[in-house]
Amino acid sequence: MKRIGECEKVLGYRFRRKSRLKEALTHSSFAYENNLPSNERMEFLGDAILELVVSDILYRKYLQAAEGELTEKRASLVNGKKLTVIARKLSLGKFLFLGKGEDAQGGRELSSNLANALEAIIGAIFLDRGLRAATRFIKKEFFKA
Amino acid sequence: MKRIGECEKVLGYRFRRKSRLKEALTHSSFAYENNLPSNERMEFLGDAILELVVSDILYRKYLQAAEGELTEKRASLVNGKKLTVIARKLSLGKFLFLGKGEDAQGGRELSSNLANALEAIIGAIFLDRGLRAATRFIKKEFFKA
Repeated sequence: MKRIGECEKVLGYRFRRKSRLKEALTHSSFAYENNLPSNERMEFLGDAILELVVSDILYRKYLQAAEGELTEKRASLVNGKKLTVIARKLSLGKFLFLGKGEDAQGGRELSSNLANALEAIIGAIFLDRGLRAATRFIKKEFFKA
Repeated sequence: MKRIGECEKVLGYRFRRKSRLKEALTHSSFAYENNLPSNERMEFLGDAILELVVSDILYRKYLQAAEGELTEKRASLVNGKKLTVIARKLSLGKFLFLGKGEDAQGGRELSSNLANALEAIIGAIFLDRGLRAATRFIKKEFFKA
């Protein structure tokens, strides 16, 4: 499917199983209309992966930082606003699978839809090739801006 | 050091670097008195690892569960009370390195000290041998109770 291939290019990541990326891009409205799994479960997983990977990078990078400082740094990297900025930079909106109503109401531009899809993509990469691949993607998008 | 070896037995895990376990057991009061690193940084890391590992296990186990259900299940497994119960079962209190005042005030029995040390130990295992080892430990302690 063309949309999936284009999205992979933008992400700089090729999925072993393309169905994983498709699920990560599937908003609950499209899932409901087409009786498919939505990206919400992958988002649940991606959120935890992002948190761990960023924690791990900060832990190893700032050897003298106390817990409070690490927590602050993490909060500045992992939050809805930052996720949305990255998702927009990757133009994830145009790749989303949305239900008709959601699409008509501007769901492609909605910050929460974009942030959730980005977390779901992180979950999908983790499922596809494990923690190392997810770490590579997160480093590229969250630390080299 | 005898305390470290005994603690390893209780945990069912042998550290490549024993200093990691020592740091995980070091309360900030002891760290302060002896100019050593406390377990707070490892706790920061361990918290994120525990969250990810439990999320991952639940994601793969409950294929039909929606995000909300997964979140609920995770909250029932990862919380201060559960951490304290496991830490007490492992009798972590007797292994803690506490400052004199903290020890005199019953710091070995304090729930937060026990829960924090358990999270720090998870962080220490992750640093020592990676995610797979941390996952094994978490499965054993959080899922086979």
